[in-house]
Amino acid sequence: MTATPAELRAMSRALELGAGVLGTTSPNPAVGAVVLAPDGTPVGEGATAPPGGPHAEVAALAQAGERARGGTVVVTLEPCAHTGRTGPCADALVAAGVGRVVVAVPEPTELAGGGADRLRAAGVDVELGVGREEAEDGALAAWLTGVRSHRPFVVWKVAATLDGRVAAADGTSRWITGDQARAAVHRLRATCDAVVVGSGTAVTDDPQLTVRDADGRPAARQPLRVVADRRGRLPAGARVLDDAAPTHVSRAATPGELLAELFDRDARRVLLEGGPTLAAAFLRDGLVDEAVVHLAPTLLGAGPSLVGDLGIRTIADALRFGIADLIPLGGDVQIRLRPTRHTGGRQSADGGS
Amino acid sequence: MTATPAELRAMSRALELGAGVLGTTSPNPAVGAVVLAPDGTPVGEGATAPPGGPHAEVAALAQAGERARGGTVVVTLEPCAHTGRTGPCADALVAAGVGRVVVAVPEPTELAGGGADRLRAAGVDVELGVGREEAEDGALAAWLTGVRSHRPFVVWKVAATLDGRVAAADGTSRWITGDQARAAVHRLRATCDAVVVGSGTAVTDDPQLTVRDADGRPAARQPLRVVADRRGRLPAGARVLDDAAPTHVSRAATPGELLAELFDRDARRVLLEGGPTLAAAFLRDGLVDEAVVHLAPTLLGAGPSLVGDLGIRTIADALRFGIADLIPLGGDVQIRLRPTRHTGGRQSADGGS
Ligand SMILES: NC(=O)c1ccc[n+]([C@@H]2O[C@H](COP(=O)([O-])OP(=O)(O)OC[C@H]3O[C@@H](n4cnc5c(N)ncnc54)[C@H](OP(=O)(O)O)[C@@H]3O)[C@@H](O)[C@H]2O)c1
Ligand SMILES: NC(=O)c1ccc[n+]([C@@H]2O[C@H](COP(=O)([O-])OP(=O)(O)OC[C@H]3O[C@@H](n4cnc5c(N)ncnc54)[C@H](OP(=O)(O)O)[C@@H]3O)[C@@H](O)[C@H]2O)c1
Repeated sequence: MTATPAELRAMSRALELGAGVLGTTSPNPAVGAVVLAPDGTPVGEGATAPPGGPHAEVAALAQAGERARGGTVVVTLEPCAHTGRTGPCADALVAAGVGRVVVAVPEPTELAGGGADRLRAAGVDVELGVGREEAEDGALAAWLTGVRSHRPFVVWKVAATLDGRVAAADGTSRWITGDQARAAVHRLRATCDAVVVGSGTAVTDDPQLTVRDADGRPAARQPLRVVADRRGRLPAGARVLDDAAPTHVSRAATPGELLAELFDRDARRVLLEGGPTLAAAFLRDGLVDEAVVHLAPTLLGAGPSLVGDLGIRTIADALRFGIADLIPLGGDVQIRLRPTRHTGGRQSADGGS
Repeated sequence: MTATPAELRAMSRALELGAGVLGTTSPNPAVGAVVLAPDGTPVGEGATAPPGGPHAEVAALAQAGERARGGTVVVTLEPCAHTGRTGPCADALVAAGVGRVVVAVPEPTELAGGGADRLRAAGVDVELGVGREEAEDGALAAWLTGVRSHRPFVVWKVAATLDGRVAAADGTSRWITGDQARAAVHRLRATCDAVVVGSGTAVTDDPQLTVRDADGRPAARQPLRVVADRRGRLPAGARVLDDAAPTHVSRAATPGELLAELFDRDARRVLLEGGPTLAAAFLRDGLVDEAVVHLAPTLLGAGPSLVGDLGIRTIADALRFGIADLIPLGGDVQIRLRPTRHTGGRQSADGGS
């Protein structure tokens, strides 16, 4: 595939635009689009609106107006060819007189597919696959997991000391990490459709699980709060039950069942915030797609560990991840990881790794 | 203090030269020196030779020869004014006709002090304190700890999983980290005068504790191998007792006593390689000056923890470090840390931190 430098720059901007609306578009994908005038100048940008609102390309075209004619639309996902709550994007592109469309990820669903064909049939030049890997690993990852696996994408977040403790011996866990790491957790929550804790964390820490800014003000949009509470231990006065955001208390027997419930509620990106027992259950079942570990440069020497028993006895069976990125966060460190072998897939273990 | 750009560049090179001989100069400091000709061109470099050999300035002057006349010597530690196994460096600088000397760290000992005064008396311009902090935190840190605290500087190195495990439930610990992290451990050993393990590690892992290259070939210089073995549990056939390097089996009752034994053997920089029990004893006594943590992006969910009990019950009492640097190391992560409050100094805890 070939793309001009202006198109590559526009794609990188489109990826950013898509990432910027992550957490607000589910069950729709978080798509970004940029319109380039015939001379390559960016003349419009857009991202997926919340469900029922315009798709990214349509928003970008609206901004570009007549300057789109004969120009190029650069978009992270293949424009749809079907009429859902909005009309087919492919038709909007044709109507705008666009000469070329550059796409990162081909539409994977039958229902919305055929956009590229429809554009080509109308004489529009279409380039597929530009920046595809970055798009698939980025803002589209969660939605693609939904399409392919019919479950939400799971981000596991945990804050621990250097020696892997998530609380001290006396149960205190406020605060392991500093302000900047805690602010990053709120930003991360904002990119998710639901935030999940086990009954243990809900009972011990009584967290509110809302998205708040540095001054404690709640964000306008709040993810669904979820407590995995098979035995109904959550007390009626728990903060997670206040009216600051919607809450789902689940009796689901397994992580898979819990994710199915959330998928049915249109969640496509779920933040698993602990604790060690629930995290271990997700990890054992291969249901963690990304881990965000905040490590504080401290030692406790005692206290509950970051993750409960995984049924692993020997080094060769360790669950392995690849480091996606590593950044200092105030005085702490953030490590973002992706599993390198399907967690829980013990049958697929290669033994020698 | 003022220094020219050429002098600052020379100082940064001198710091590098000093760091390059760390581990080969004890009980002497690892000093680096650069000679600049009158026009600012570097014309000689040197670093401290092993004990009995020439000091850094003298080596650098020898390389510069006549080009040093009227020039500047940039050196990380104030030139000595006393006659030890070598003559006073201050006199050598005067004899070489140097016009100016730029120094990072003033000589802290009475015995070797007075170099700057002697130079000034001979009409040489002397600038003290250029790059001092970097020099004190770098190659001179260990030697300065010896001068100030009459004990070796202790670097604690540990390799752990993300959940802080140093071995799996069945005791296997080979290999937690990958090739690059293991190679870094050998380079780290080479910068130290002694490598210390507890009897637990010596018995369980039977490590050889030598400095080897990627092909397993031993380095020419080997640090002293030390086993802290109060009860005499080390078996006669342990690999640490082979003839690949000298070994000291210590019955010292406390970390402080052990360090005193090593200081008497001229060790100024000691690598504490574990395990968790001995590391906890050093940490409790405030005897860790730097920590090098190699984290593998893996999870075990069980197994011995990075550090044993520290007597800490609550979050506010956690031992705190500052992150000196953070680097990816193959697939692993290296975090280098310095204590931010004197570990073990519970009386100095600020409670609120
Ligand atoms: N530092 C951090 O990032 C962080 C984050 C969270 C928690 N924590 C700490 O972790 C500690 C709490 O640990 P925890 O392990 O008790 O908390 P948890 O994992 O949040 O809760 C465990 C409970 O989840 C319930 N659960 C529901 N579905 C489950 C399933 N499929 N598999 C397993 N369990 C399921 C179980 O109770 P039922 O059988 O009744 O359903 C279980 O006892 C606290 O000290 C807290 O401070 C720290
Ligand atoms: N991943 C890593 O970086 C790494 C590194 C090292 C070890 N390990 C693992 O750690 C495990 C061994 O753990 P460990 O804690 O038994 O090893 P350890 O800390 O090396 O040895 C503990 C022993 O040191 C002796 N010791 C001597 N002076 C001491 C003092 N002042 N205070 C406390 N103890 C003193 C004690 O025996 P006496 O009372 O007889 O003197 C004690 O039982 C193994 O599984 C090994 O694989 C991992």
